[in-house]
Amino acid sequence: MEPCDQRLRDAFDPERFRAEGHRAIDLLADYLVRALAGASDLPVLPWRPPGELVAQWPAELAVGPSDDDVAALLPRVLAGSTHLHHPRYVGHQVTSPLPVAALWEMVSALLNNGMAVYEMGPVGTTIERSLLRWMGGVLGLGAAADGVLTSGGSLGNLTALLAARQAKAGFDVWSGGAHAGPPLAILACQEAHYSVRRVAAILGLGEAGVVSAPADERFRLRPERLDDARRAALAAGRRPFAVVASAGSTATGAFDPLEEVADFCREHDLWLHVDGAHGAALALSERLRPRLAGIERADSVVWDAHKMLLVPALATAVLFRDGRRSAATFAQEASYLYAPGAADENAWDVGTRTFECTKRMLGLALYAALRRHGTGFFAAYVERCVDLAASFAARLRRAPDFELATEPACNIVCFRWTPRGVGPGPALDQLQGRLRRRILAEGGFYLVQTRLPAGVFLRTTLIHPLTREADLEALLSTVRDAGRAEAA
Amino acid sequence: MEPCDQRLRDAFDPERFRAEGHRAIDLLADYLVRALAGASDLPVLPWRPPGELVAQWPAELAVGPSDDDVAALLPRVLAGSTHLHHPRYVGHQVTSPLPVAALWEMVSALLNNGMAVYEMGPVGTTIERSLLRWMGGVLGLGAAADGVLTSGGSLGNLTALLAARQAKAGFDVWSGGAHAGPPLAILACQEAHYSVRRVAAILGLGEAGVVSAPADERFRLRPERLDDARRAALAAGRRPFAVVASAGSTATGAFDPLEEVADFCREHDLWLHVDGAHGAALALSERLRPRLAGIERADSVVWDAHKMLLVPALATAVLFRDGRRSAATFAQEASYLYAPGAADENAWDVGTRTFECTKRMLGLALYAALRRHGTGFFAAYVERCVDLAASFAARLRRAPDFELATEPACNIVCFRWTPRGVGPGPALDQLQGRLRRRILAEGGFYLVQTRLPAGVFLRTTLIHPLTREADLEALLSTVRDAGRAEAA
Repeated sequence: MEPCDQRLRDAFDPERFRAEGHRAIDLLADYLVRALAGASDLPVLPWRPPGELVAQWPAELAVGPSDDDVAALLPRVLAGSTHLHHPRYVGHQVTSPLPVAALWEMVSALLNNGMAVYEMGPVGTTIERSLLRWMGGVLGLGAAADGVLTSGGSLGNLTALLAARQAKAGFDVWSGGAHAGPPLAILACQEAHYSVRRVAAILGLGEAGVVSAPADERFRLRPERLDDARRAALAAGRRPFAVVASAGSTATGAFDPLEEVADFCREHDLWLHVDGAHGAALALSERLRPRLAGIERADSVVWDAHKMLLVPALATAVLFRDGRRSAATFAQEASYLYAPGAADENAWDVGTRTFECTKRMLGLALYAALRRHGTGFFAAYVERCVDLAASFAARLRRAPDFELATEPACNIVCFRWTPRGVGPGPALDQLQGRLRRRILAEGGFYLVQTRLPAGVFLRTTLIHPLTREADLEALLSTVRDAGRAEAA
Repeated sequence: MEPCDQRLRDAFDPERFRAEGHRAIDLLADYLVRALAGASDLPVLPWRPPGELVAQWPAELAVGPSDDDVAALLPRVLAGSTHLHHPRYVGHQVTSPLPVAALWEMVSALLNNGMAVYEMGPVGTTIERSLLRWMGGVLGLGAAADGVLTSGGSLGNLTALLAARQAKAGFDVWSGGAHAGPPLAILACQEAHYSVRRVAAILGLGEAGVVSAPADERFRLRPERLDDARRAALAAGRRPFAVVASAGSTATGAFDPLEEVADFCREHDLWLHVDGAHGAALALSERLRPRLAGIERADSVVWDAHKMLLVPALATAVLFRDGRRSAATFAQEASYLYAPGAADENAWDVGTRTFECTKRMLGLALYAALRRHGTGFFAAYVERCVDLAASFAARLRRAPDFELATEPACNIVCFRWTPRGVGPGPALDQLQGRLRRRILAEGGFYLVQTRLPAGVFLRTTLIHPLTREADLEALLSTVRDAGRAEAA
């Protein structure tokens, strides 16, 4: 045997994997104990200025092997990462995943079943298709619904809007190009996710290709203003083909009035895309389902499992009420990939329906978690998050030195610290930013910020399953203390 | 404590994770023993007709919990998946990953550091940036190179071509839209990956937006014909802005002559994008590096780590010779994400440079593997794969009843079985397809097929680190036996 072969055999040695694997499990389990307990020596975000960590993780790599195995490197990775399992993680809407989901991601990674074609992942493909049918059922999209899993909500919005363009542009943009017809436009609320503007720019619609309708005082699309946007697009020589509604929006978690938007789309023959990346999960709860009323009329919906379904990023479902739209989005053939076969067999090659060719077994972790815990578990979790946000909002309203941006519609709460003597304006805005940076540096909480029409607000997503009222009480004290230190 | 909280606590219990984790490690290690040994009771692909597995993985999910933990479900996932660790996996160019890489993917999944902004993943971001600098160095792109990791080669090609469009279209397509200028065109070899056509269609260039130059008899772009393609585009009223060259191509692994293509791009002020998803890894080997001569002149390069760098999908590097192009691709702001800060700090928010917002810690597994095994290990692996392909080609040339499509330029080998009495044509094409399906059903090998100008060929990628000469000898016997059975 050649020396290279021996090194490869060593690297692939199952017993080495077993030993390193057990060590990794123990290190991670020990880490979870500390993180979930919010250990006092574990800052939520171990803040270091960008660039400072390069010395630990340099770009220069040795030719020969080292002793840097999992046991050596993992503690350093843990020490320098943001701790989403810390109950005082209240930052971006990225979940603190179910630990068992990480095991399934390991399985997916090891098997590496590529998923573009059924042959490259029979179980992965089957699970993906079953999961999509289940999700379509939760949203009430009907028996003809179908879709695909893809790597993230931005790619999901791109996929849905490509289908929309093909269906409603009035000419074949995919084959004939944009110049075969007039410039197109997407109508959306000004609060829509920034990826919608990115998609418009990618598609060649330009920045004016997203025509915004204003939001109401609770950051919801005002459906009665949609026709103004439509007319403005037409007046600019553009042909609108889709409306993007949010459920909920990224900045504040607002739910656009989907029934009215669906009526508008039907009236004007426009595609209704609902960006439910964050909020579609509310459909799991009978109590919260009314906030999504009308979603069952959407032509397409994006739903991120890595937000409120407790699995790691990225795992996004793109669902089409008329499943044939999913198959028509990328009408193309690559002979090395898609061998001619019976039509019903080729329908199982999910690479025909997603921009990705190879992808991970994106549905495995979620499907396994749903089987293990049951759908009721997820419904209860979603309700808990939303209820906690309502309670937090009430707490903020009671505090004289805090201002709530709006009543939360889900589990995103925006607020600001408003000390006596500092009115709205740049000084107040900068104060929020400065006090947030201070909190990050101290490590007590991880929260983010956003700019709303009234100014800069602090932004929290109550997505951790074990964040408690006491943590939120402590958050207000922490903000107040940091604000006083910065205002001093 | 409320009942919901208790269920959440149970689901997040670190000791439960520990117990299930150890069980998962043992099951996977046992699986690796069998797969790597090519156990006789383990078909490479456990073929089942699409749909048959739905009974095991149904779309109907119970409200309540079940006993379906990792120990219960994992054996069924393993039994129904394609076994990339079987040394007779010679299918698509998706790697059989280093087992330890799967451990790092578990770490990435559990930590779930979102990576759009530095705050959401200080270590992940640092590793990503160091990895990109190292990769840029391997390719010789120079000190100003920079880039981003993204979810897959298709998205990588999209990202690079967006930068190309912005740099070379002659007008600001991102802001002003496609109609602000003439229709654009991408020049590429007819052998370019199908995602290039997808990108063109997405961008609104239409199917005629990719103008193809013919390939030579070894499936390489013929640079002397590029100017014909350019003139054809101009004659059709299109403005070419980029040339896509392959290193190597997907169907046959051909390397386009990059020096000549770079000369052409310089002469005509076109962006040179090199799709090195598969073949850029050859740069690791001093001996093989000449096949990529000229790649250091590319404006952008895509390089998939999940192909020849032994880590799980998806992990793709998009590298720009002028790193500022990376930052300029998606020029946009989302206030809830990118808080105003010092310019050098914001440069660390990688979400500004990729279509994705949230993503996984895509560089962790590769960086850790490079640290552990050294760069020489990967160079030796790549050389082994390429040498094995050359040896397999020689074996095919010696066999009177086999036809080699072309001398392999890397580790992709295309060939067909040509029994006496069946000349080129539909009968021979169908025979390749039928014998391949028979082999898949029997499970002895996993190989794919592709259509070349001369007809349908079987296609193998020798990417498994432990595939041996004896396996390839057995492959020829297996093809011959399957062919005879089908021809009978």
